[in-house]
Amino acid sequence: MVEHSGLDIMCMNKYSPGASTDTEKKLFTRLKVSLTKRYPQKNAETLSAQYGANLLLIGVSVMLALAQHGTVVREEHLLTFITVLMLVQLAWMLCYMIRRERERSPLPERDAHAGTSWIRGGLTMLALLSLIMDAFRIGYFVGYHSCISAVLGVYPIIHALHTISQVHFLWFHIKDVIKKYETFERFGVIHAVFTNLLLWCNGVMSEAEHFLNNHRRRLTALGHANHTTVEVEPQCNCSTSVCSMFSTSLYYLYPFNIEYHIFVSAMLFVMWKNIGRTLDHHTNHKRPSTRSSGLLLGPVLGLLALASSITVLVVYLIHVEKSVQTREAAVSMFYCYGVVMLVCMCGASGTGLLIYRMEDWPMDTGQNPSRALDSDLLLGSSLGSWLMSWCSVVAVGASQSSPSYRWTCLAYSLLLVLEKCIQNLFIVESLYRMRTDPAGGEEGSGSVPEIFSVASSMVPPYDGIVNRAYETQDKRCGPLENEAHENRQVYSRKCSGVTLPVENSLNVTPGRKRQVLKNITIFLFMCNISLWLLPAFGCRPQYDNHLEQEMFGFSAWSTVLNVAIPLNLFYRMHSVASLFEVFRKV
Amino acid sequence: MVEHSGLDIMCMNKYSPGASTDTEKKLFTRLKVSLTKRYPQKNAETLSAQYGANLLLIGVSVMLALAQHGTVVREEHLLTFITVLMLVQLAWMLCYMIRRERERSPLPERDAHAGTSWIRGGLTMLALLSLIMDAFRIGYFVGYHSCISAVLGVYPIIHALHTISQVHFLWFHIKDVIKKYETFERFGVIHAVFTNLLLWCNGVMSEAEHFLNNHRRRLTALGHANHTTVEVEPQCNCSTSVCSMFSTSLYYLYPFNIEYHIFVSAMLFVMWKNIGRTLDHHTNHKRPSTRSSGLLLGPVLGLLALASSITVLVVYLIHVEKSVQTREAAVSMFYCYGVVMLVCMCGASGTGLLIYRMEDWPMDTGQNPSRALDSDLLLGSSLGSWLMSWCSVVAVGASQSSPSYRWTCLAYSLLLVLEKCIQNLFIVESLYRMRTDPAGGEEGSGSVPEIFSVASSMVPPYDGIVNRAYETQDKRCGPLENEAHENRQVYSRKCSGVTLPVENSLNVTPGRKRQVLKNITIFLFMCNISLWLLPAFGCRPQYDNHLEQEMFGFSAWSTVLNVAIPLNLFYRMHSVASLFEVFRKV
Repeated sequence: MVEHSGLDIMCMNKYSPGASTDTEKKLFTRLKVSLTKRYPQKNAETLSAQYGANLLLIGVSVMLALAQHGTVVREEHLLTFITVLMLVQLAWMLCYMIRRERERSPLPERDAHAGTSWIRGGLTMLALLSLIMDAFRIGYFVGYHSCISAVLGVYPIIHALHTISQVHFLWFHIKDVIKKYETFERFGVIHAVFTNLLLWCNGVMSEAEHFLNNHRRRLTALGHANHTTVEVEPQCNCSTSVCSMFSTSLYYLYPFNIEYHIFVSAMLFVMWKNIGRTLDHHTNHKRPSTRSSGLLLGPVLGLLALASSITVLVVYLIHVEKSVQTREAAVSMFYCYGVVMLVCMCGASGTGLLIYRMEDWPMDTGQNPSRALDSDLLLGSSLGSWLMSWCSVVAVGASQSSPSYRWTCLAYSLLLVLEKCIQNLFIVESLYRMRTDPAGGEEGSGSVPEIFSVASSMVPPYDGIVNRAYETQDKRCGPLENEAHENRQVYSRKCSGVTLPVENSLNVTPGRKRQVLKNITIFLFMCNISLWLLPAFGCRPQYDNHLEQEMFGFSAWSTVLNVAIPLNLFYRMHSVASLFEVFRKV
Repeated sequence: MVEHSGLDIMCMNKYSPGASTDTEKKLFTRLKVSLTKRYPQKNAETLSAQYGANLLLIGVSVMLALAQHGTVVREEHLLTFITVLMLVQLAWMLCYMIRRERERSPLPERDAHAGTSWIRGGLTMLALLSLIMDAFRIGYFVGYHSCISAVLGVYPIIHALHTISQVHFLWFHIKDVIKKYETFERFGVIHAVFTNLLLWCNGVMSEAEHFLNNHRRRLTALGHANHTTVEVEPQCNCSTSVCSMFSTSLYYLYPFNIEYHIFVSAMLFVMWKNIGRTLDHHTNHKRPSTRSSGLLLGPVLGLLALASSITVLVVYLIHVEKSVQTREAAVSMFYCYGVVMLVCMCGASGTGLLIYRMEDWPMDTGQNPSRALDSDLLLGSSLGSWLMSWCSVVAVGASQSSPSYRWTCLAYSLLLVLEKCIQNLFIVESLYRMRTDPAGGEEGSGSVPEIFSVASSMVPPYDGIVNRAYETQDKRCGPLENEAHENRQVYSRKCSGVTLPVENSLNVTPGRKRQVLKNITIFLFMCNISLWLLPAFGCRPQYDNHLEQEMFGFSAWSTVLNVAIPLNLFYRMHSVASLFEVFRKV
């Protein structure tokens, strides 16, 4: 205990022996006081991040051992570990909610940007699908209960409980800016973040393994290779008649479960970043959404893209299993479809960027952890798919065989890189643009935030348990907003009905441009959903075209894909969410 | 060109046909104006980051293809690509320096925290070793010039040129805060960052391949396995007699070259982050370093650790090659040594943290990209080694064989996790603590920065090409500082000579504590150098203990190691640099 100041004490002992016990006492009291006092938050941040990272890494190392299909480390061990983590998270959430309930009186601060209601709604949908998955898992366990470990039955029950309470937590507490017991809560939140990340990893691993097994089976059926499948089947017969139905449908629900966990962990991460933060009331208010008139081209083209993607998906999955010729045709079809799709998306995002170049709407530089995380995640998750694309380019360039899809594959890969670059730019620019008043154009932008900020300093920012942060201010500013809407509607009506003088039409352009932007956004939104659907449900030509596999070898290439495909899926879902944010903002 | 506002124009054409050409002209001018005007910096940041990431990924995908040792993609292709990147960087640096030279008059802003002189000194040393490596490479090329590609001769020449100009750039421009042609310079700097990262990757890959080949050869010699080595030897005889000497010594220089490139890219990244930044003059000044009296225990123990590490390294490398028994003994010895070392390091860092808990020196919350990057990199690079440790823990826990080093391996792995956690906490806390005046204790901390900030607003922050930012202020504050030094020396003399009253000795404690901290820091500094030396020069028991390899399989485990070991090496070097910073600050 006194080791920390050994030198001091030595020095004192030597030259003032009489006073030494007195000094030691004083030192002890000082140490005691300092250990109970407030822990610096920078350290709490580092410490909790390290704790969380290690939790995840323990899980990952068990997964790596599992992937070898040895006899010692089995799935039960991993599931037990995850179950324990979920139980700890449940306990923390319960504690947190009870404490919040008790100390209702002092109004807690809330970050209006974290977890908007539509994103929470989306997550609730995903959570429902996860619950169905849990039900299937329980059914599967009941069928085989005589020969599989009890952990496989406990896990889905706890997972269902975890899902329900987590959704409740997200609805009522995700915006909280924690200012009490910061160090303790930091650990709780980061525990939740990494528990969800681990659940994501587990989902990704199960899904990848299932896909690889299917792929191997297909290759063997086509006479391509003689890989042995390593899927473990229970040793006994199913006691109910629907076991195979359960295990098959499970894999159609995996993609939703995977997205659910990664999104929750991103939201909780924002909550963690917000702990102890002092909110800037100038920027912390929700902007009311504008009416969406003049939306036609975007949604129509988007629906077209979505429909064609579903067609491609079905055709691909049927044809890729039949024979070598149909497989080649399916892969060719996919690449052609992809090229068309990506060209359209590049065009749309590029147009959006050009519009931004023409207008100088001001940039919003306020602090906003949620937005900063959004842009970082977009860039970070693009890396996986870029690596995949560049590998394809190298493989096409150096390939000695020349299948029919060789050059479309090259075009597809290059376009994929380009499309992600432009789309990222478009989304980031949209998120960072200040929203100006549609009627007033650039001039109006200065005054509205002024009013908001004055209002927010007078009105309590919280009214009730349902998340209505800043609703009061919104109402207060209502008349101004309504006026703006009316102005805009007048303009639209003029444009669609009567002749407009040129001066006026030039004034109108910001509003018109916004409509174009809204159309672009909704189109990109649909396209990203399409490009999520395809790989999520098994359309992965990177496995079937054999170009890359020849160049990099099966094990290296499937390692790359096992990392890159989940990242790519996350990228698509995340850009869907960001584009929705953009849509509401423009 | 007008596609971006298609809807506007359609709308206008329909209802005011006469005015359409006029409007289009106006739109054109507007577009022209807006395309030439200043590009928003948030976008430039995203765009340049995407450019850099893609450069790196192209390189990585070529490396992946190379790792398969096919006939199509050869080393020449990779080297050509890297050479081109280096040439582009050279051109940019030349442009930049010439422009800076011309517009000397307006004093450029400089970030005093970026690239301190001792870190540039260290880099210069590493650069010299890299130059020797280039010389060896040229020698090797001359020897085999008749049968190897000319690219292998051009590459080291360009690399040497690149190294020299880069070091020059680091000395004179790394602190620059760029405010002109921001978008262009952003691309230049990020190009330099990613060129160095790619050179780092290339170094890491060559080094890992060389090590793996050695390892395979050793295993085959011990009769353990029958791996075939895939090292490519030139097809002709060497025309000079020292070719083998060149190629052997090359591998002893690799570790230095690798560290050189990763450090340069971290420094350039800080420069990139600084582009367009408005410096906060309150925090932007270098603190003069304190005198280092009372340093004894730390350096002595540190040197002891260093000496024992070198002994362990030599003994390990000799014994691991001999027989299965000596190999086991060598691995056991390594783990015992590691456990002792890590326990000492944990104790030292823990003591440091306790001292911080006892004092409440204020935290420095000023913006400082360099420091933020330092802490992020520490945490990020720990991940690799943590994953490795947890894999070892899983392997030991589930292993069916039980070699003599089984439980020391477990202790070593757990201690490694703990040591990195505590050390990270210690370094981060030290970096974020405000330095208080040693004589005045906590009270003095308020006044000195005041004087600094006043001075910095009056005195130009730049005097001459050599990096003497804020030297003037330092001089101005000289008397005060000197007084402080004198006060401290008086205290030290008192402490070592005459009896001190207790009240006074309690006042002295902050100074004493600082001495303890300095000792701890220097000890940790030496320990980290030791732990860098061991894996850098081939002491990697993770390959030789066979526990993990049994559990995870050779390919999965060597993939983990190929990622984790370079990260771990970087972690050690980076904490050496951070600890030096801490040493100067305490």
